[in-house]
Order: sequence, then C-alpha cells, then structure tokens
Amino acid sequence: MKRVMLTVAYDGTNYCGWQVQPNGITVQQILNEALSELTGEEIYTIGASRTDAGVHARGNVAVFDTSVRMPGDKYSYALNTRLPEDIKIQGSREVSPEFHPRFTDTVKTYEYKILNRRFPDPTRRSDTCFLYGPMDAERMNEAVLCLIGEHDFRSFRASGETNPDRSTVRTIYSAKVVREDDLIRFRICGNGFLYNMVRILAGTLVEIGRGKIDPGEMTQILERRDRSAAGPTAPAHGLTLLEIRYPEWEPDFFIRKQEQMSW
Amino acid sequence: MKRVMLTVAYDGTNYCGWQVQPNGITVQQILNEALSELTGEEIYTIGASRTDAGVHARGNVAVFDTSVRMPGDKYSYALNTRLPEDIKIQGSREVSPEFHPRFTDTVKTYEYKILNRRFPDPTRRSDTCFLYGPMDAERMNEAVLCLIGEHDFRSFRASGETNPDRSTVRTIYSAKVVREDDLIRFRICGNGFLYNMVRILAGTLVEIGRGKIDPGEMTQILERRDRSAAGPTAPAHGLTLLEIRYPEWEPDFFIRKQEQMSW
Repeated sequence: MKRVMLTVAYDGTNYCGWQVQPNGITVQQILNEALSELTGEEIYTIGASRTDAGVHARGNVAVFDTSVRMPGDKYSYALNTRLPEDIKIQGSREVSPEFHPRFTDTVKTYEYKILNRRFPDPTRRSDTCFLYGPMDAERMNEAVLCLIGEHDFRSFRASGETNPDRSTVRTIYSAKVVREDDLIRFRICGNGFLYNMVRILAGTLVEIGRGKIDPGEMTQILERRDRSAAGPTAPAHGLTLLEIRYPEWEPDFFIRKQEQMSW
Repeated sequence: MKRVMLTVAYDGTNYCGWQVQPNGITVQQILNEALSELTGEEIYTIGASRTDAGVHARGNVAVFDTSVRMPGDKYSYALNTRLPEDIKIQGSREVSPEFHPRFTDTVKTYEYKILNRRFPDPTRRSDTCFLYGPMDAERMNEAVLCLIGEHDFRSFRASGETNPDRSTVRTIYSAKVVREDDLIRFRICGNGFLYNMVRILAGTLVEIGRGKIDPGEMTQILERRDRSAAGPTAPAHGLTLLEIRYPEWEPDFFIRKQEQMSW
C-alpha cells in the first residue's frame, strides 16, 4: 500500500461542496469515483479542507491509499482525462503512509474576490461576488492589519458551529486587500480557519469598504468574541482556496510566514 | 420612435453565438425576448458584431427602436433584472435614428486568452484556451508587429466565407501579445475583422509561440493572401470582444488609434 497526495483545483459552482453527502454531488465523490475507476479498487479520499457548496479551489489537498503500482506522480495525468472540466488535478506524488492532510500543521491561503463596478460582468460571475456602489479598498486593507498574529477568532465563526471544545484561536500570517481596477482581492494566509471565517471576514470588510463600519472597529469586533459583532457572511462563490502548504516539508517557508507577522 | 443603443456583455459558453438562428438559443434572441417583454412591443435588435458560438463579449453593441417613453439610459437596469446571469447590459443610451451599429465606422478590440500551464485550471476554463508546453510570448509579440496598418488579411479569413465582392482589406491600429504568469493575452484593435480572423491569427501565433513557425514568417503568411498559409483556427472560447467604439462620436480617440500605427 502506498499513500498518494493530490493537489485538486475545482470550480465549485456545480457542487454541494467538497465532502461526500447523501443529497447532492460533491467534489470528493467525483474524485473517489474517478480514482476507483482508474485503480479498480474502492478508493476513498481524505481531504485537507472541506470547502462549502459554491467555494472554489486552486489547491485543495487530498490523499488516498492504493496497492496499485503506478508511480504517485502519474496520477495527475491519468485522473485529468477522467475528470470533468470543473475538477482538475494540479499535481500528485507519493507521501508517507502516516501523512494526514488535516491533522498535520498547515499554512492555508484563501482569496475572496469582490467585483466592484456598475454592472455585473457575465464572464466573471462564477468566482467573484458582484457589488456595485463605492467601496474603498484602502479602508479595507487598513482593517485587516489587526487580524495578523494569534487571536481568538470566535466573532468570525458561523453560529451553526457549536462544539464548545474546539479552540477558536488561529494564527494569521498575512492579510491584505488590494484593488486592481474593478476587482478587490482580499487574501489571507494562516494556520487554519474557523467555519465560514473568511466569508464572515469578507462580509465585515464590505461594510468597512462602504463606510458603514470604521476600519479601527475591526479590533473591537475581534475582541468581542461574539458572532453578532461581525458583519454578514459573504456569498460562497467569491471564495477560492488558493493553496495549502505543509511546514514540515518546507520549514523555510513556514519561518518566512512567521516573520511576515512582525512586518 | 426612438433608437436606443445597448452595450452588451455575455459569457458565450451556453449560446449558439449572437445572431438569431433556427437551431439553438442565441444571445440576440434572449435580448429580443427580454426587450419585448419589457416594452410590450415586438423588439428586434441589430447587433454590431455577430460573434460565433462560444465567443464572449464585454462590449458588443446593439440598437433597437421603440415608442416606449422610458429614457434611453434606464434600459440597462430594467433589462438586467430580466436577463440571465450570462448576459448583462453594461450601459444604454438614446442615439440618432440614423445610427446603424454595423454600417458606421468602428474601432473594435478583441482579446484572445491562452492559459499556458501544466494542468487545466477549472475556474478559468470558460474564457481561456488551455495549452500546455513551452510557449514564448515574446516571439508571438514580435510576430504581430507586421499586422499593424492597412493590409489585405485574406490569409486569415475562414475558407467558408466565399463572397468575392467583399473587401478583405482591414486596418489594424494596435496588436500586442503579453504574458502575465500563466496567461498569454493577444489583444488586437482595428477597423474591422474578417470572419474568424482573430481566431486564425491566434492559431498562427500559437505555432509561432511553440517555435514551429518563425516570427518573421508572419509577413509572408500575410502576403500570400491564402488561408492555407496561416495556422489553424483557435477555439472560440478563448476569444472575447472587448470593445466597440464609434469614431464619429469620439474623433480624438480615432486619431489616437491612427497615431498608434506609426509607433
């Protein structure tokens, strides 16, 4: 048996999220089916990030075990010919049988994209959230500075998540909001994110960008540790999981990320 | 009666092109239906550019006549609530009843996007043409220089177009190929384009980028005035009609475009 790791990109528009579930087609299900067909074994993948319905990924990570002798790096090509256009493998390789994509320290990067213009753009509708009216990206960027570092992000956790044992403390290595013409990008990188955390942050930033909340209030929202202090949850389709990296494989990358915090 | 001009953006993926036709849903048909419903009159639009199946637009132009008294600039909002997500009006205004979007001098800009990376990207699959393997955008940019100016572009006209009376001479004001990471953009601006011209140019540029044709050969291909001299027709979904402008309304813009030719 060997364990193979896949880097998976998908357009989440037509899926009920990552995780296999009884009522709807998911990315994981399509991947399990393609792998089972390819290997002739019953394959069940373990994903690093169980993205919600409508959320996209450029680099989610999944592993599976197989006794097939094909080299780990050949899976990307072999799978892509069997996968639909909206799910494509970006790389594959053999990893240690002990490697678990969720119970290993990670550095994850998410991006939330806001299309801020007068009218919707049909060619960019699936991976941006369209919002008209003035929006000040510099105010938004000012507000994210206080997120960097280790904090209790309870204010930015979906109220549906009720497990009281779970820690709500996470470390953010970098956070930035930049405008490129009519596109506002909010990019955030950290060691983990609570349920809906990036979307609640994005929803709060929209209120800040529109002048309804002062950028300086972000610190107080964070300190309140109460979901009702933050803004609304921004729609899923503006969110993309850009990258997941594992510090144990790249200690230098992890040190650089930690250094960013002190900038 | 008044004539209203619309700037129309669409994702061409799910349409059989612009022009109304018996076997398939087109952008123009959806637009005619939405306008007829809105005005209570039977509206038939006239489009500036009859884009092919799968081709996208950020700024195609259409006009229609109506006796409804709503101001011309209100149509964009009124229509967008009735249009599907993949067709959205970007602006509307009243124009002279004599204005015809196709029989008026125009400056059109098209963009062909090539996604040049190892694996396909699901979130960018609908408006880029994915091609792996090394591709040299600088060679491609060198090759487009000879297109600028007035030339007979017969070599870049689909062989299906056989009307011998139609001139195949067009003026290109600017043409450029740039790489931004894994994306190669070929942008071309001129007073008109022959049937499939931008896609045949893109297909020829791909061969140049891959080293199969020398950049200097573009001049000879142009001079041959023979479709078989050029490369293949690149797929429709990589092409976007960015903009159509009318020099009679903006003489300065037109003069600037002509000046670009001498750069």
